[in-house]
Amino acid sequence: MTSDDMDGIFGKNHSLLITNVVVDTKKVDIVIDEKGIITSVGEMAGKAWKGDEDFLIDGNGALALPGLVNTHTHAAMTLLRGYADDMILQDWLSQKIWPLEAHLKPEDIYWATKLACIEMIRSGTTAFNDMYFMMDQAAKAVNETGIRAVLSYGFIDLFNAEKREAECKATENLAAHIKSLDNPRITAAVGPHAIYTVSPEGLKWCAEFAQQQKIGIHIHLSETEKEVTDCVATHGKRPAAHLDSCGILTPRTVAAHCCWLDDAECRLLGERGVSAAHNPVSNMKLATNRAMPYADLKAAGANTCLGTDGCASNNNLDMLEEMKVAAILQKFFWNNPTVLPAPEALAMASANGAKALGLPTGRLVAGVPADIILVSNRDACNIPLHNATSNLVYSTNGGSVETTICNGRVLMLDRGIPDEAYVLNGAAEAAVALVERAQSG
Amino acid sequence: MTSDDMDGIFGKNHSLLITNVVVDTKKVDIVIDEKGIITSVGEMAGKAWKGDEDFLIDGNGALALPGLVNTHTHAAMTLLRGYADDMILQDWLSQKIWPLEAHLKPEDIYWATKLACIEMIRSGTTAFNDMYFMMDQAAKAVNETGIRAVLSYGFIDLFNAEKREAECKATENLAAHIKSLDNPRITAAVGPHAIYTVSPEGLKWCAEFAQQQKIGIHIHLSETEKEVTDCVATHGKRPAAHLDSCGILTPRTVAAHCCWLDDAECRLLGERGVSAAHNPVSNMKLATNRAMPYADLKAAGANTCLGTDGCASNNNLDMLEEMKVAAILQKFFWNNPTVLPAPEALAMASANGAKALGLPTGRLVAGVPADIILVSNRDACNIPLHNATSNLVYSTNGGSVETTICNGRVLMLDRGIPDEAYVLNGAAEAAVALVERAQSG
Repeated sequence: MTSDDMDGIFGKNHSLLITNVVVDTKKVDIVIDEKGIITSVGEMAGKAWKGDEDFLIDGNGALALPGLVNTHTHAAMTLLRGYADDMILQDWLSQKIWPLEAHLKPEDIYWATKLACIEMIRSGTTAFNDMYFMMDQAAKAVNETGIRAVLSYGFIDLFNAEKREAECKATENLAAHIKSLDNPRITAAVGPHAIYTVSPEGLKWCAEFAQQQKIGIHIHLSETEKEVTDCVATHGKRPAAHLDSCGILTPRTVAAHCCWLDDAECRLLGERGVSAAHNPVSNMKLATNRAMPYADLKAAGANTCLGTDGCASNNNLDMLEEMKVAAILQKFFWNNPTVLPAPEALAMASANGAKALGLPTGRLVAGVPADIILVSNRDACNIPLHNATSNLVYSTNGGSVETTICNGRVLMLDRGIPDEAYVLNGAAEAAVALVERAQSG
Repeated sequence: MTSDDMDGIFGKNHSLLITNVVVDTKKVDIVIDEKGIITSVGEMAGKAWKGDEDFLIDGNGALALPGLVNTHTHAAMTLLRGYADDMILQDWLSQKIWPLEAHLKPEDIYWATKLACIEMIRSGTTAFNDMYFMMDQAAKAVNETGIRAVLSYGFIDLFNAEKREAECKATENLAAHIKSLDNPRITAAVGPHAIYTVSPEGLKWCAEFAQQQKIGIHIHLSETEKEVTDCVATHGKRPAAHLDSCGILTPRTVAAHCCWLDDAECRLLGERGVSAAHNPVSNMKLATNRAMPYADLKAAGANTCLGTDGCASNNNLDMLEEMKVAAILQKFFWNNPTVLPAPEALAMASANGAKALGLPTGRLVAGVPADIILVSNRDACNIPLHNATSNLVYSTNGGSVETTICNGRVLMLDRGIPDEAYVLNGAAEAAVALVERAQSG
């Protein structure tokens, strides 16, 4: 069942009125029109509303925020959650993750992405930047669940011309398929995986194709020190300079991780207007040994944003948790408790994230699509409320999100998501079957 | 209203049967007698139960765990949650935290500790190790909410003989008061704050009093590098050796933080049988610049456990979140993804924590008091369930706890806590009034 088939507030878009919510310390109403656009935000905004009472949401004093934006993940890896942890990176990949991924079927990607969407809706994320394979199945899941996504096929040519041709074709096919869906919530991006898996020719093709299609680029950059050392040995320059020589660094580029950037690379990302997606939980769990130089990137004018990475290396998709870990990791690693204060962490997860993905959302103002979440003001961890932004970053987690709206459509209301049990069962069964297939060879 | 006044399952202890829960990957029943003791755990354990159907809890496939043990916190600091963050330590303390604390009244401590207890019950903690002041109010709150606690008065003599006498008296008074309560859930400990706030004479008195009373010791140790440098300059030895010379290092001692211990200090804590309480979130937020040497402490035979610290420096009391941050910080800081694997993180938060506080709990076996939590197996973040321990540490947070039982008494059932709104309102009002008093001088 897709949301279009549903009755009531979860069905098609309606004119919505949200009353009694707090935005930037002020108690306001929010009005949304039947096209899913916010038409007013203010103390008396609800007075003029003429909609159906069935579509009035009493916010009950909740904190209203723009829907959070996860700027780097591999959504379908939910199916690998907890399958293997606490291992040396190379063993973990070669002995556990890759062998299991080799058995993934298209319907697994569908169920896994549906599960990811449910988890994101539940924890307040309304848009995500995804990179994986069999992405037509991811698009189907995103289409049905009502969330927003930028989908890229993970382009990996392994420096082989024949494989490169296949990857170009797969990238073109996904872009054409997503265009054919004509869904304003779903856009394509080009996904060159990383400099150690994609040839310079492959990177250049990706850059040109992205420019020609006017779509984004999603890439891993400087996650490990080895990537830097190998790049300097092979190309005589550091990873960001290498990417720049291939045309990959653009204002439409999201570079994930960015742990090992030096000062000159931070300046280069700033000059090119690149978005740097911080993934603190994944970096800590996989022991990258260095945190993204947030302050340097910010000073250089790069757009800093936030991502959870995939569930194999996190192991959840909770952006409220990710904000906290980002804010405390930056302080700890850079040995300064003033680095990445709460308002900047919240901006990374919302307005900056929307900018990174080229979305008009990320703000609660009239004229932009209604991607809105309501966070309970009645959870113990959100009391007292000396400072809502501090509580959002440091005290609450995704479990305090009560209501999630994307593009004006209600996806979760008072913690209820239609069809949730059906999706969770489907994904759980797919995961069991996947492991059984892998174990039987 | 105390839980004794309540009707039904939340009232006095009853013989309870919990069916259909998962313990160590096996589906079992758990039977608890009317004295609050677990009498059996097993596949058919419920068959022989002859209790009242009203006291049967259908676990619905949830994961059953021992209640978590928070081995270092300042519970009443919930009232300061979010009051000030992202500041240099000394400014934060002298400009924000201390001035507000100076206005705390006894009833504030009561409401703040009640709020902390609700937050802990909600996130699966059934016992905590507390250090603050006006601790008779904390005892009252703990008594009413049904949770388990070890309470210590924060002994700070500032190297002044007169003040020392008053601190000894306060410590004696608390121990006598708690003895008079005769509540098996509440015990006293001695709480010498730290080597930089307590004189050697004060430390020695604390050690002797603890030994004489057969109660625990709760102290901060090596949180910052400055503490080490100053100690070496003043006493000619490092902090652990200094504490040892005052008799503070014992099997009943919980040393919080332990960030800057060197190898010899780790061995000393191991030899003395000390419990080292890791506080990763607080350490990261306040930028201690070094993580507790977990692997060295473990190798030396110290008992490693976990704490959240107070809400001013965390800013919540969620031990499930703390397990994750511990596991990923250890990997990141020590540059090894195999350090502190999930089963060890869970042990730190449960069995090791119980051992640290001298509690008989921390295990789900017949004969021990029933401190039990049920974690939902139907939350998106807990699906699939390849590995329950991995999911508990890396994927879930306190929001997935459905039911909390302490000493055989049901404190939360299916996410419902009686009287929660009353406590949250009381605490919220106390916090507003506190800030108003502080601002009006």
